[in-house]
Amino acid sequence: MRMAELSRESGVPVATVKYYLREGLLHPGERTSPNQARYDEGHVRRLRLVRALLDVGGLSVSAVKDVVAAIDSPDTPMHTVLGVTQHGLPSARTAMADEQAQAWARARVDALLKERAWPCTDGSPLTESLVGLLATLRALGHTEFASVLDHYADAAQQIAETDVRHVAALPDPEATVETAVIGTVIGDALLATLRRMAHADVSARLFGGGKEINRPESG
Amino acid sequence: MRMAELSRESGVPVATVKYYLREGLLHPGERTSPNQARYDEGHVRRLRLVRALLDVGGLSVSAVKDVVAAIDSPDTPMHTVLGVTQHGLPSARTAMADEQAQAWARARVDALLKERAWPCTDGSPLTESLVGLLATLRALGHTEFASVLDHYADAAQQIAETDVRHVAALPDPEATVETAVIGTVIGDALLATLRRMAHADVSARLFGGGKEINRPESG
Repeated sequence: MRMAELSRESGVPVATVKYYLREGLLHPGERTSPNQARYDEGHVRRLRLVRALLDVGGLSVSAVKDVVAAIDSPDTPMHTVLGVTQHGLPSARTAMADEQAQAWARARVDALLKERAWPCTDGSPLTESLVGLLATLRALGHTEFASVLDHYADAAQQIAETDVRHVAALPDPEATVETAVIGTVIGDALLATLRRMAHADVSARLFGGGKEINRPESG
Repeated sequence: MRMAELSRESGVPVATVKYYLREGLLHPGERTSPNQARYDEGHVRRLRLVRALLDVGGLSVSAVKDVVAAIDSPDTPMHTVLGVTQHGLPSARTAMADEQAQAWARARVDALLKERAWPCTDGSPLTESLVGLLATLRALGHTEFASVLDHYADAAQQIAETDVRHVAALPDPEATVETAVIGTVIGDALLATLRRMAHADVSARLFGGGKEINRPESG
């Protein structure tokens, strides 16, 4: 297909397609004349991936380049491609914690990772996010959350099994990476929303019907 | 205690404490002279709650007022207080979906809520978030995510049981609401981070060791 049709098919404006070509996010079409090239379904799939990475995933153009390069180098295992993709995703921001809170948090994260044999190392963005979040909880005076961390990790592991088996069944690396990004980012929001709905359900059961527990001195 | 001590104890600057007093987020102290008032531990707890709602929860000042008013009216059940709090939390933003995608999403959300008997109604912010997220997935061509929604809801329900039982054991409404907000907001980020760590673990098992599945025509 020509550029105009590629644009129509993918829903990406011609100027944007040209920008992706210049930036190397999209591989060149097959030249048919000095001013024209032919594109195929591979280009449509790649455009869909690039849009998902940029718009849904919030990756920077340079992070998208890394993902595309990993997909295009034939000896890169899919695990590495997914790792490069995940690395490009923005992670949770944290602040507010002093050195003591950081040390407390790091000890807990180290213990969790060791117990589960999760392949995350000190200094990796995910490990640092988790340390930062726990340190924030400690700085806020909520050390008791450390006790629910294992429940969260159990639930996360269950969901991750579902997620990765789902993307592993897809037919090509573009689809795998695209679905992984969309599933990660929209999945975070889905899970957060469902958790709040479930909170409302459990709260109605525990506190509903006018039952007012633990309000001895309020008002 | 005097204002200066309240500020020290709570870590909130005097000017900010005065602002909260003017806005009605903090109840007045006991007047001891025309220019002085005495504050107690209840003020320290309330300040901690207000900071958590504003800084961690991202609630607006007017949403914080609603939460505080609900806590302070003695006949408001805790379930309602938590509902008011949750209502004030920012929800997931979504876009991109046309009417057809919205209708498809709403049918799936209705079925989910009916099956689980979750107390969420059409038009509630959480229901609309969920509809928006599913509609976004459909607009992106990922209708297959509808099939994993039940797994996510199961995991969300498990976590919510842990969460709500945890806050139900707390000694006063300030602590309950504060912990619920921190647990909801930091909990979202914790869960998202743990899920990505678990993704890396499952991906290493499924795709690791150089096994390159589903890459027949890549490169």
